[in-house]
Amino acid sequence: MTAYDYIRDGNAIYERSFAIIRAEADLSRFSPPEADVAIRMIHACGDIEAARQFVFGTGFVDAARAALAAGAPIFCDAEMVARGVTRARLPAENEVICTLRDPRTAEIAASIGNTRSAAALDLWGERMAGAVVAVGNAPTALFYLLEKLRDGAPKPAAIIGMPVGFVGAAESKDALAENSYGVPFAIVRGRLGGSAMTAACLNALARPGL
Amino acid sequence: MTAYDYIRDGNAIYERSFAIIRAEADLSRFSPPEADVAIRMIHACGDIEAARQFVFGTGFVDAARAALAAGAPIFCDAEMVARGVTRARLPAENEVICTLRDPRTAEIAASIGNTRSAAALDLWGERMAGAVVAVGNAPTALFYLLEKLRDGAPKPAAIIGMPVGFVGAAESKDALAENSYGVPFAIVRGRLGGSAMTAACLNALARPGL
Repeated sequence: MTAYDYIRDGNAIYERSFAIIRAEADLSRFSPPEADVAIRMIHACGDIEAARQFVFGTGFVDAARAALAAGAPIFCDAEMVARGVTRARLPAENEVICTLRDPRTAEIAASIGNTRSAAALDLWGERMAGAVVAVGNAPTALFYLLEKLRDGAPKPAAIIGMPVGFVGAAESKDALAENSYGVPFAIVRGRLGGSAMTAACLNALARPGL
Repeated sequence: MTAYDYIRDGNAIYERSFAIIRAEADLSRFSPPEADVAIRMIHACGDIEAARQFVFGTGFVDAARAALAAGAPIFCDAEMVARGVTRARLPAENEVICTLRDPRTAEIAASIGNTRSAAALDLWGERMAGAVVAVGNAPTALFYLLEKLRDGAPKPAAIIGMPVGFVGAAESKDALAENSYGVPFAIVRGRLGGSAMTAACLNALARPGL
């Protein structure tokens, strides 16, 4: 009879995980609040080395936390990002919105000549003002967000730019870091990123600690 | 006026991404169907080197594909995994089930002295026979699955064991690979894994190609 030896207490697993990450990861580039966010992002991807690619723009953590505390909605590019947000952590029962599956998205995509992920942003409208925007999947959504900001769209309070992949991901995040149109941002440079890391970032911003 | 130069066509992005992965990743250990699954998993995490940790047990791809074609349900440990399955790819409108948020889960967790992620498996019952089981988040769910199989629970057709993290993740996947109780399996060794990679594995099994 095989016996499996493992920790069965959720909080104990979290605490031990975060302790391992603090012991192994180089977090010296980050402020304490940034380090807390970084730890949860590392936890989501299982890769200590990923921290080398994290960039928190000036004022990002404070701006995102203030917006969430004030009840700002969270706009996500992907259903997986939205699903990964732990509702109980949110400070003001903030709305978590993903418009990718809205029936209008396909038609908008055809009319603007872009992906559905990008087209979904056109449904955010004026509510983008002061919101927290989280792009965790599609580089096209992040590029299109930058185009909209360039053209005068309402400014979010903070932008999480963490699309993953091999085509456009690195370039879209570099573009955000180079000119975020005055909006505080966080990115993961290069190919890494994704819905889990993005949701982890949101969950860390929503509430500090476990 | 900043101009952003990027590919705006979804299928072109997929094709180019997969071509880059084929060019950069060492897929020589895999059969052609395993390589197709591996490519989609690499695509989900943005990390070519992750492929070194992929292990496909004997008969895994065939067993999972046959089960899905025959209409088997997919049981997931996490909402993000379930949400990441592209419904349109499924060959038989297969059910995608996650019982983590079932109101009974907390009580079961208390009674078995384990996490809610593990307790959720107790709601799968006889339907686990012949199903595709995907564990992409919680090592405790994978350990508990092994305990249930050891104790005579109905056998799934295939097990995707890809929890991520620092406490128990590597150990739970090693345990599955060492003795899967006769069930074909796939794992990502070590700390890597997660909901995106797991959903990508399911999406590749559901339908070959783009």
